[in-house]
Amino acid sequence: MADTAPVIGIIMGSQSDWETMRHAADTLTALGIAHECRIVSAHRTPERLYDYARAASGRGLRAIIAGAGGAAHLPGMAASMTPVPVLGVPVESKALSGLDSLLSIVQMPGGIPVGTFAIGKPGAINAALFAAAMLAGTAPEVAERLDRWRRDQTDAVAVEPA
Amino acid sequence: MADTAPVIGIIMGSQSDWETMRHAADTLTALGIAHECRIVSAHRTPERLYDYARAASGRGLRAIIAGAGGAAHLPGMAASMTPVPVLGVPVESKALSGLDSLLSIVQMPGGIPVGTFAIGKPGAINAALFAAAMLAGTAPEVAERLDRWRRDQTDAVAVEPA
Amino acid sequence: MADTAPVIGIIMGSQSDWETMRHAADTLTALGIAHECRIVSAHRTPERLYDYARAASGRGLRAIIAGAGGAAHLPGMAASMTPVPVLGVPVESKALSGLDSLLSIVQMPGGIPVGTFAIGKPGAINAALFAAAMLAGTAPEVAERLDRWRRDQTDAVAVEPA
Amino acid sequence: MADTAPVIGIIMGSQSDWETMRHAADTLTALGIAHECRIVSAHRTPERLYDYARAASGRGLRAIIAGAGGAAHLPGMAASMTPVPVLGVPVESKALSGLDSLLSIVQMPGGIPVGTFAIGKPGAINAALFAAAMLAGTAPEVAERLDRWRRDQTDAVAVEPA
Amino acid sequence: MADTAPVIGIIMGSQSDWETMRHAADTLTALGIAHECRIVSAHRTPERLYDYARAASGRGLRAIIAGAGGAAHLPGMAASMTPVPVLGVPVESKALSGLDSLLSIVQMPGGIPVGTFAIGKPGAINAALFAAAMLAGTAPEVAERLDRWRRDQTDAVAVEPA
Amino acid sequence: MADTAPVIGIIMGSQSDWETMRHAADTLTALGIAHECRIVSAHRTPERLYDYARAASGRGLRAIIAGAGGAAHLPGMAASMTPVPVLGVPVESKALSGLDSLLSIVQMPGGIPVGTFAIGKPGAINAALFAAAMLAGTAPEVAERLDRWRRDQTDAVAVEPA
Amino acid sequence: MADTAPVIGIIMGSQSDWETMRHAADTLTALGIAHECRIVSAHRTPERLYDYARAASGRGLRAIIAGAGGAAHLPGMAASMTPVPVLGVPVESKALSGLDSLLSIVQMPGGIPVGTFAIGKPGAINAALFAAAMLAGTAPEVAERLDRWRRDQTDAVAVEPA
Amino acid sequence: MADTAPVIGIIMGSQSDWETMRHAADTLTALGIAHECRIVSAHRTPERLYDYARAASGRGLRAIIAGAGGAAHLPGMAASMTPVPVLGVPVESKALSGLDSLLSIVQMPGGIPVGTFAIGKPGAINAALFAAAMLAGTAPEVAERLDRWRRDQTDAVAVEPA
Repeated sequence: MADTAPVIGIIMGSQSDWETMRHAADTLTALGIAHECRIVSAHRTPERLYDYARAASGRGLRAIIAGAGGAAHLPGMAASMTPVPVLGVPVESKALSGLDSLLSIVQMPGGIPVGTFAIGKPGAINAALFAAAMLAGTAPEVAERLDRWRRDQTDAVAVEPA
Repeated sequence: MADTAPVIGIIMGSQSDWETMRHAADTLTALGIAHECRIVSAHRTPERLYDYARAASGRGLRAIIAGAGGAAHLPGMAASMTPVPVLGVPVESKALSGLDSLLSIVQMPGGIPVGTFAIGKPGAINAALFAAAMLAGTAPEVAERLDRWRRDQTDAVAVEPA
Repeated sequence: MADTAPVIGIIMGSQSDWETMRHAADTLTALGIAHECRIVSAHRTPERLYDYARAASGRGLRAIIAGAGGAAHLPGMAASMTPVPVLGVPVESKALSGLDSLLSIVQMPGGIPVGTFAIGKPGAINAALFAAAMLAGTAPEVAERLDRWRRDQTDAVAVEPA
Repeated sequence: MADTAPVIGIIMGSQSDWETMRHAADTLTALGIAHECRIVSAHRTPERLYDYARAASGRGLRAIIAGAGGAAHLPGMAASMTPVPVLGVPVESKALSGLDSLLSIVQMPGGIPVGTFAIGKPGAINAALFAAAMLAGTAPEVAERLDRWRRDQTDAVAVEPA
Repeated sequence: MADTAPVIGIIMGSQSDWETMRHAADTLTALGIAHECRIVSAHRTPERLYDYARAASGRGLRAIIAGAGGAAHLPGMAASMTPVPVLGVPVESKALSGLDSLLSIVQMPGGIPVGTFAIGKPGAINAALFAAAMLAGTAPEVAERLDRWRRDQTDAVAVEPA
Repeated sequence: MADTAPVIGIIMGSQSDWETMRHAADTLTALGIAHECRIVSAHRTPERLYDYARAASGRGLRAIIAGAGGAAHLPGMAASMTPVPVLGVPVESKALSGLDSLLSIVQMPGGIPVGTFAIGKPGAINAALFAAAMLAGTAPEVAERLDRWRRDQTDAVAVEPA
Repeated sequence: MADTAPVIGIIMGSQSDWETMRHAADTLTALGIAHECRIVSAHRTPERLYDYARAASGRGLRAIIAGAGGAAHLPGMAASMTPVPVLGVPVESKALSGLDSLLSIVQMPGGIPVGTFAIGKPGAINAALFAAAMLAGTAPEVAERLDRWRRDQTDAVAVEPA
Repeated sequence: MADTAPVIGIIMGSQSDWETMRHAADTLTALGIAHECRIVSAHRTPERLYDYARAASGRGLRAIIAGAGGAAHLPGMAASMTPVPVLGVPVESKALSGLDSLLSIVQMPGGIPVGTFAIGKPGAINAALFAAAMLAGTAPEVAERLDRWRRDQTDAVAVEPA
């Protein structure tokens, strides 16, 4: 995706979240959507988060996909500092299996929205598909690719279990 | 909003969800975004849901905000039948306080995304703000109104509690 | 079971649910009840679900056993489109161990019932036994086989642990 | 319903459960299905439970709807002593809002099924509708009434919230 | 323990519970308390449960330790049919890790008590220690052995971790 | 109960727990069992707890009923300092409805048992009934009163709801 | 507290949190500890949070007590931007009773600590007492006042409930 | 750390907690803070707990880090018997993954504070960092080491995932 300016930013709280968030990247790649991947820790690198969120709109990002686990503050804090829509992915945590991640991301107060997806890999895939659907509203070629992706998905469902 | 074709559809599973979902409508009205409100029950009117979801894209809807409680299937089923992005609002349920609504909406399998927001009123407000932010990407006047809304919100935060 | 028209339909949201749902099929086979097994995804193949549910009654199905995990909408959506009784089996999910599956299936609003069973394998077995018991009300030979099955089960309980 | 032998038995663990279970009785009455209502406490009147469950089949009951709260053992214990299908309704409990009731009823081991419905009033209504649907398989007049009930329900869903 | 009439009965819902309940037996053996171990399934062998509970007092049992998992009805149903104190051990269940077992046992309605212990092995050990403490009130030699057991336990706690 | 030395001690963490624990006292009174009621806070009066627990056996107490809410340490700490059996009552807490109280009491490590009862009033009643059943093993007059109490309870269960 | 520079900063996410956090302020006042109270919303006023946290150490604050509800990011984000110890108070939320607040605050990743206290009023009081205890380590007069406060608390525990 | 009197005491309920608590010790060692590690079981060695807590202040301890699992009473009981600040670490438990440990530690009643950290290893590390931050308020050399530790941590966050 080197030749095109990214329109989607994927950020995550730590290297260990990449195992989950790579599925968002893979899905965007499959749909031909330019994106970038960054580690931005709300807690360990708050300045980096500040800089990233503040610059997002000007850099042409149309959505930020943010994944984090436990007391997951990254999606909500990013959303507090940019008008760009933020999509949150709760990463499965060790002790509480991501229930803490989910509640920390989805239960935002009225005023600062984070569109939240399922815990773990399905959520990462879906955040990417959702970002694609947002772009598709004004980019017919993305709409078409997404449409084909969904038709392929439907066709891939076998009729009988085996 | 009678003179303009709606760009956001707000749907809900029953009349009783209106108490929550009106906050989505009010927020869109405050931001000057044309929208419509419909009761569409996934369980009691599955044909209506089918028709609504299938027609959404052609009718020019850019997002669907779907609120439901308990075994809340409306957002996910709408998302399965339209390329239009679906924003889910878990309505607070009687016995389990909306935890059932939240899990029924957010835990979608990889392939069909629903951007999910907080349980109850904050979630309804945020779904509307998120829909506005999506539109803002290609509609400068919405971006401006949303920006003013957020600045007003920030300014309204008092410095000392009273 | 090829020679007899199926009276029980077993459907599941994805191939991966078969690991759980095969226990429903095995139990029906053991009781000599004709059945069919189909993959019907509420989210990825909504048309297939629509067609299956709408045709169920006319095809002579007396019950539908529907298994799904996570935001499990299959049982409830099937129930919304057929008068045939629907038995729901919550498949164990990765992060939340099937608690999401259970709540998504059992917490149906008044008006559209889904008889729900335990998470995972015990639920699949029990849905099959329950379907058999429903048939047994008007089919003495099923009643007898079910009765023998239960007596065998009782006899198999050892008196002392070893 | 005095003139006809009951085909559905509604039992509940205590007088206080009647507030919930009356909705099952009302629904059956609306569908013209003969039924009886009894207080049968698994814990305080185990002999009565034994007698009721053992006699159910011979008395012509086609289903037992059993409601209980907290450590709710009534549905499962009834199911252990009769071949008649048992439908369980988790009554909302004081401290844990019926989550204890739900788990105590639905998590039955493989071998003894209880078809479980939602916590509280929706579950009571749905257990009655499910029992009606079971009967409808071999009773066309019940099928017709149930069909009309569902059509009325669908027609009653307003198009716009107010 | 063959030569002495058992004063404690250990019962469990299935063979698979023995893995947990053997710790209750081992603890009683270590304290020199005569006991018996039986598989008594509330659901699969309700008559056996009835017979066991009804005979318990006359056979000289001073306490019943009952272990079960999932929708765990064995302790509460035993308690409903005997004046002998019942000690409940929630066995860890597959999907919900014993939270269902715990709530099914501990949340008994006022009137029929079950003294409940921790989920799994610690609960099995503690039920045995509790039974011993009950006996110790009128059996000085048990009191002395229990006292020594506790002192040994205290002495076994190392001062520094290693 | 002034004339007889108490055989059961009821302790609670604060005055506000009395609303719950009075039901334990009332039940013991109804059964004619001498008891005493004390406020003993594990956290605010640890010395009082130490003194109470250490003296319990010598003072002739046969059981201690301990009620507490939230991070409820009173029952477990009492059990760690006396051979007298401790019965724990989880008092309903404000935010978490007693789930915290329950887990803090019941999840004791192997070695120090606390027989735990239901959250709130039913648990308080049942702890008292359990204490009575313990005494009944060697006190025929208590056994008789308890037996009558249970028969009255059974007789009080109406046959039909009203 | 106007004449003395504050050593403890109490911050909260919104005016509505004051109902809870005033108990922290009242407790500090009772102990004679200079403090300030500010509304600092992590989401609506991220700059204010940045400024407050960055200046805290230089202004002489020895601890920050931060209260927030729902997806409560204030304590953790403050902790990420200052070396001053942060004490978190989970404010009771509407739908989930503060369980979301608690997990969002306490489940911080290794590297950025937030000392967390109970949900609601008890947590606010305890955060203040903890802050006082921290100061007491090097301020004998605070130690003495705290000691008297604790003795008064112990003395206020009645012996018998009434 | 043999040459210096410990200023931080690390205590834990059993040897098995060391797997978690060693991370607290390692962190203090890395920061050059003198500490000691002791096994002190609230339940099995209540006297040792009493002695340890009572002596803590006089021995010069500035904070106690207490880790325990299940019905985790160690931190709260230590806090009830010393003015030294207590930092609680919920150790992950077998059945409930540390949710029981967390609630048993954090939900302390108003009056006796325990600063609580995340479940498991992150909580152990953070308790140590928090203790260091407390000391840093009056020990510039600790402040400097802690500051460097945090800068190193920030620098270690890679920009892109790999």
